[in-house]
Amino acid sequence: MNQADVIVIGSSAAGLVAAITGKNANPDKKITVIRKEEKTLVPCGIPYIFESVKSTENDLMPSEKMFDTAGIDLVVGEVVSVNRDEKSCTLRSGEKFGYDKLVLATGSKPTKPSWLKGAELQNVFTVPKDKVYLDAMQVSLADCNKVVVIGAGFIGVELSDELVKSGKEVVLVEKLPNILALAFDEDIAVRIEELLSSRGVSLKTGIGVQEIFGDTRVTGVRLENGETLPADAVILSIGYKPDSSLAIDAGLSVSETGFIKVDEYMRTEDPDIFAVGDCAEKRDFFTRKQNPVMLASTACAEARTAGINLFKLSVVKTFNGTLSIFATALGDTGFGVAGLTEKKAREEGFDIVTGVFEGTDKHPGTLPGTHKQMVKLIFGNESGILLGGEVIGGLSVGELTNMIGFIIQNRMNVNSILTSQIGTHPLLTASPAGYPLLKATGVVARKRIGLL
Amino acid sequence: MNQADVIVIGSSAAGLVAAITGKNANPDKKITVIRKEEKTLVPCGIPYIFESVKSTENDLMPSEKMFDTAGIDLVVGEVVSVNRDEKSCTLRSGEKFGYDKLVLATGSKPTKPSWLKGAELQNVFTVPKDKVYLDAMQVSLADCNKVVVIGAGFIGVELSDELVKSGKEVVLVEKLPNILALAFDEDIAVRIEELLSSRGVSLKTGIGVQEIFGDTRVTGVRLENGETLPADAVILSIGYKPDSSLAIDAGLSVSETGFIKVDEYMRTEDPDIFAVGDCAEKRDFFTRKQNPVMLASTACAEARTAGINLFKLSVVKTFNGTLSIFATALGDTGFGVAGLTEKKAREEGFDIVTGVFEGTDKHPGTLPGTHKQMVKLIFGNESGILLGGEVIGGLSVGELTNMIGFIIQNRMNVNSILTSQIGTHPLLTASPAGYPLLKATGVVARKRIGLL
Repeated sequence: MNQADVIVIGSSAAGLVAAITGKNANPDKKITVIRKEEKTLVPCGIPYIFESVKSTENDLMPSEKMFDTAGIDLVVGEVVSVNRDEKSCTLRSGEKFGYDKLVLATGSKPTKPSWLKGAELQNVFTVPKDKVYLDAMQVSLADCNKVVVIGAGFIGVELSDELVKSGKEVVLVEKLPNILALAFDEDIAVRIEELLSSRGVSLKTGIGVQEIFGDTRVTGVRLENGETLPADAVILSIGYKPDSSLAIDAGLSVSETGFIKVDEYMRTEDPDIFAVGDCAEKRDFFTRKQNPVMLASTACAEARTAGINLFKLSVVKTFNGTLSIFATALGDTGFGVAGLTEKKAREEGFDIVTGVFEGTDKHPGTLPGTHKQMVKLIFGNESGILLGGEVIGGLSVGELTNMIGFIIQNRMNVNSILTSQIGTHPLLTASPAGYPLLKATGVVARKRIGLL
Repeated sequence: MNQADVIVIGSSAAGLVAAITGKNANPDKKITVIRKEEKTLVPCGIPYIFESVKSTENDLMPSEKMFDTAGIDLVVGEVVSVNRDEKSCTLRSGEKFGYDKLVLATGSKPTKPSWLKGAELQNVFTVPKDKVYLDAMQVSLADCNKVVVIGAGFIGVELSDELVKSGKEVVLVEKLPNILALAFDEDIAVRIEELLSSRGVSLKTGIGVQEIFGDTRVTGVRLENGETLPADAVILSIGYKPDSSLAIDAGLSVSETGFIKVDEYMRTEDPDIFAVGDCAEKRDFFTRKQNPVMLASTACAEARTAGINLFKLSVVKTFNGTLSIFATALGDTGFGVAGLTEKKAREEGFDIVTGVFEGTDKHPGTLPGTHKQMVKLIFGNESGILLGGEVIGGLSVGELTNMIGFIIQNRMNVNSILTSQIGTHPLLTASPAGYPLLKATGVVARKRIGLL
């Protein structure tokens, strides 16, 4: 039996970071990563293989090189069982690997609904993190002109935009009233809808799919209102579920929705087994309820925590809970959200106060490339603590959203934000006198003392 | 005598924000802004009038409209004296304005060294925030081909780049060993030098100016080593000094370097007189020593504090001290710094540990427009608290620098940063597994436990 101090199963973002952080913290330990795939993809880059970067070959994660540099062993093979008593994993090939510590980074799989008639037809695709599948899908899509994308979360929106850029006719169907409805408030989502439409994607929101039809190959989609959409291909982007089968088979507890139960340091019930990334349970930053978010960035944060704490709890984990921080872009317009939306906060029963400010992302606004920038902030009404922020702007929005994320994680309030210092520059940011983050906070300050 | 509840003298960034914040917090108070200039400029936009935005007309601060919307009175006139007993200001016209609270936002003036021979010659310019002066300067520069810029701080660097873009031959002279030497560590500064050179600016660093020469009009500059540089025009960008003459005449204390002394709420010795912006004394975030930094963003932070606290100390000021946060850009490359550089930290006697990581600002790096991103962080060695960060990257660097600013202001340490959550997106940020801010922190974590 092969033996390693640490075995990491899976090598997407979470597995990669857990292995590297683990090795960095424990240079004398032997760490082996076992993964199914010959090559792995940058997960968030997958929508962009359809036009911006052209192929999966341009979306490869350089994990082999990173493992090699770090001194980590890589084994390509599928782990089919974990024996907790023997502390070993068995591969489909029959090969066995013993471990002292095991990290499950088995990820997630796209939801392919069995209840949806026609989902099994040819040219009906999902979007897994699987190079072989995606390469074949791209070959098939090359002959397709009309594509219906079902599900307008981030993947669905990004894919639709890419496919339109590549010259296809795209209809994006979403059962909820708005695209990105779980991520953004409606006032933000409608702006993204306007932009996506203007870029050529046809939107059908607030309407579900009744069936996908065709002979052997898909020819169309019927909506709940009877309307039919002709389709050479259909892409289902209606969500992902945790891939926790190995953990379940090994007798580890999972939540009702299938996430592997973990503690604050990403340890499962078995103190020698950690779980990180999409397969691991997440607790919400604000409520401690389960949070089903699946983000590479969240996965990496968990992986860092696991990697550092594999052999001893050597780091006090000062940030607790999962904070959703998303961003995306369509052309030169970026959108981001950190923490609670107004809608989610109200649903959870938070007493809140919101502030909105619209400005520009450069100053003066006469500078070439200036983009409008809007910031919406959600604060606790009595505590004055920031609970969430949504942003529309140019391409600096990703880091601006991260800034809001740090403000939330530090539990900053109206006063501490207003008296903070920022830096500004004409070519890089809004003006110091009209910095939307601070101006939106100012609106909230005035509302709280009854002046607005 | 005219009477107002609050008079603000000056209406660049600090005066504007003090007036508007003051009015927002006290809607029933009459606020009057008195300024010398008919029209005011966006201060940080001034270097860009020389090419990017073409003229001062495209760099105007829309203050008239903002005052009008807020219900603030604007008077154009020069205040020549303040009578603290009578609580009044007198204009050059003889007109008098009584106040209950007075805010001095009188700004700064460019240093024009009397010791420098030839500084009085025709076509030797400084860079004041004065539309009339700058308009005349632009007319004169139109006939000039060879320009020597003396002083490679931010203004000198930005101006040089703009003038080259406009087709002129530019030599930038700096007495210190590197350009931007007070803002960045040498390892960062040399990269900016390479870029600025590649864009066509000739650099002369580590050498002072002996004299400027010419008949009535400048024809050249002689350096300390005897070398002469032909020049149709010379621009002195060697710093600014606080314009505190009104305060001094009114008997208020100023520091040895001329900054008006203020407390944490921007109050001068006279409880009814506040000072904000370039004219007001700043205390350093890390050492409480005087910090001579002059930034519009700092000025606005001070102005917000003054505006909120004009009539009562209604906000607990949770952020204390002046934190330098700078950023600028040359083409599509941005540079930023927040807090202490390695050099400054060592000079102050901090026991530090640094971490550097180089990655990209998009992921995968095959995406069009991907720019390298380098982050250098300076932590306290024992405390593990972040003291400063320097960044080179694409145009998201401004907000990334602000993120580092928030991390510093929240006194986050290695552990709290490493266990924080960030958001990432291919088009907007580095990858979650290679996010330079976190990777540089990881380097420091390993150094601190003796692994690097």
